[in-house]
Amino acid sequence: MTIALPSQQIQTEARERLAALATPAGALGRLGDLGVWLCAVQGQVPPAPLTDVRLVIFAGDHGVAAHGVSAYPAEITPAMVRTFLTGRAGVSALAAANGVDVRVLDLGVDDDLAGVPAEVTAHKVRRGSGAIHLEDALTGEETARALEVGAAVAGQAIADGAQLLLSGDMGIGNTTPSAALVAAALGLPASEVVGRGTGVDDEGLRRKESVIDSALARAGARTDDPVDTLTALGSADLAATVGYLLEAARSGVPVLLDGLISVACAVTADRIEPGCAAWFAAGHRSTEPAQTLALAKLGLEPVLDLGLRLGEGSGAVAAVPVLREAIAVMSDVALLSELMP
Amino acid sequence: MTIALPSQQIQTEARERLAALATPAGALGRLGDLGVWLCAVQGQVPPAPLTDVRLVIFAGDHGVAAHGVSAYPAEITPAMVRTFLTGRAGVSALAAANGVDVRVLDLGVDDDLAGVPAEVTAHKVRRGSGAIHLEDALTGEETARALEVGAAVAGQAIADGAQLLLSGDMGIGNTTPSAALVAAALGLPASEVVGRGTGVDDEGLRRKESVIDSALARAGARTDDPVDTLTALGSADLAATVGYLLEAARSGVPVLLDGLISVACAVTADRIEPGCAAWFAAGHRSTEPAQTLALAKLGLEPVLDLGLRLGEGSGAVAAVPVLREAIAVMSDVALLSELMP
Repeated sequence: MTIALPSQQIQTEARERLAALATPAGALGRLGDLGVWLCAVQGQVPPAPLTDVRLVIFAGDHGVAAHGVSAYPAEITPAMVRTFLTGRAGVSALAAANGVDVRVLDLGVDDDLAGVPAEVTAHKVRRGSGAIHLEDALTGEETARALEVGAAVAGQAIADGAQLLLSGDMGIGNTTPSAALVAAALGLPASEVVGRGTGVDDEGLRRKESVIDSALARAGARTDDPVDTLTALGSADLAATVGYLLEAARSGVPVLLDGLISVACAVTADRIEPGCAAWFAAGHRSTEPAQTLALAKLGLEPVLDLGLRLGEGSGAVAAVPVLREAIAVMSDVALLSELMP
Repeated sequence: MTIALPSQQIQTEARERLAALATPAGALGRLGDLGVWLCAVQGQVPPAPLTDVRLVIFAGDHGVAAHGVSAYPAEITPAMVRTFLTGRAGVSALAAANGVDVRVLDLGVDDDLAGVPAEVTAHKVRRGSGAIHLEDALTGEETARALEVGAAVAGQAIADGAQLLLSGDMGIGNTTPSAALVAAALGLPASEVVGRGTGVDDEGLRRKESVIDSALARAGARTDDPVDTLTALGSADLAATVGYLLEAARSGVPVLLDGLISVACAVTADRIEPGCAAWFAAGHRSTEPAQTLALAKLGLEPVLDLGLRLGEGSGAVAAVPVLREAIAVMSDVALLSELMP
């Protein structure tokens, strides 16, 4: 299936409106660019207010977490799923402040999550994904299921009226497979994509680089195929995120990306269905080098650079008010023709 | 008068709360830093929600505008004052989106502003300030009056309950005296502080540099005194802004700074009463080099970098939601001790 691009006609009309505002040419900077993009992806000039913005946090564990690539133990993943459900996580506070709806889904947490509502766990693909330097993360059938789950979740949100989708991720070790996806997509060695995640030390960073290099060597030419790359190097939560992003683009609904995990999935989605990225904007500059490399590949520049390395979708949620500002200037600033008729 | 610094005790308590949140150390990045600052300047942990945020736009003309330093004619200044009053300017849209109250004050517009409400024009110090390469911007008495007006306006806003003050400016040519104030404060030549403002061409940029160099040479050793610097190189709107910032700091009320004009006034205020800057945060990175230099001098790092060069206080207003996000994480995220008692 080919992705339809946002309307060129609407984009042209939006640029004309921006140029006609009673502000000096270019003075609105990124707010002007974002305003034009929002018109194009909404298909209307001026753009509509963003009243229905939804974040889905895809949760899953990663076999590599047992191999010293993270500053935190895997037990944190189920604990954080429960924290999201109480509405007391970092991203919960940001989402409440910005009127963003949050949903968390267990795709591959290595825990039964006893007592957690079935709507969270009903889509589980497996308990933990494989340690990618030693084995495939998923079977091909699991990858297909995870892609379908992500697509179905996006489809349901869109049917319910979502105007903007955000993707987040929770899972100790998740920057390792994400960096591997970026390395595979961009043809780079581990040394160029590896970063400290939530705060691994120098030794951990070397282990992480070694794990990614081994994983890339193990996968070999399979990384030429983006879906097979998810099977070899990804995880259930990452594959679901890719499916979610693909479905948003197919449906013509814009997405605000988060940090490394979200952007690694975006670059993978754009490999599967080229053109996807036209429906994506980048919320936040990650401290992970692989995110910057993948954003450059997609031609995206982040809205914010606040040094966040919380994950959870927090960088995307934090940028939502700036998109609302872009809509406000496109909608509410006087036209020069109104002031000087 | 000496400025009292924000409470060290509260700052320590705020850092302790930040460290106790159920997030990885440092993962909140700038939101954590801003959250600690907001606690300190509010004198409470966690900080209170920002429900009363006020922008004052100080308007005035500059004699240098008749000497080819701006891409726009001085007639734009009174036209924009009227646009602010209709609520249709760029900053009006941003302020409405972010719940920020906007007030505009005529300090030195070179126009009678017939029909404009008296509350806007009642504080006018003069019509247009002097062309600083040829003459003083103000008399010493005018500088004193403008400083008093700015202080009174801040004092009134604070008495009415303002929790955060923003300063904006409107006046064709205003980046020229502002860059001169920065050059005087930092001991730099015009070549290092000059920028394109709202979009002057190469020839205009050279004229601007020449005007600032002449002005600095004309003022000579008078720039050792920050108030006399305002008289020689400033303007009525800039002097009022300095008074406004000083009064906020004296009263212990935080300020979110805007672009070059606001930051040039902040660096001048900090020369008059050292320590002021502890009460200031920086909203937006300006494209003007002098703003970056002055912020470095004050030890401030902007929250946003959206390429705005609209003026009007727009960069400060745009950053207000990020301060609200910082308050949300400091207030609403669970403590680790609550999750793992």
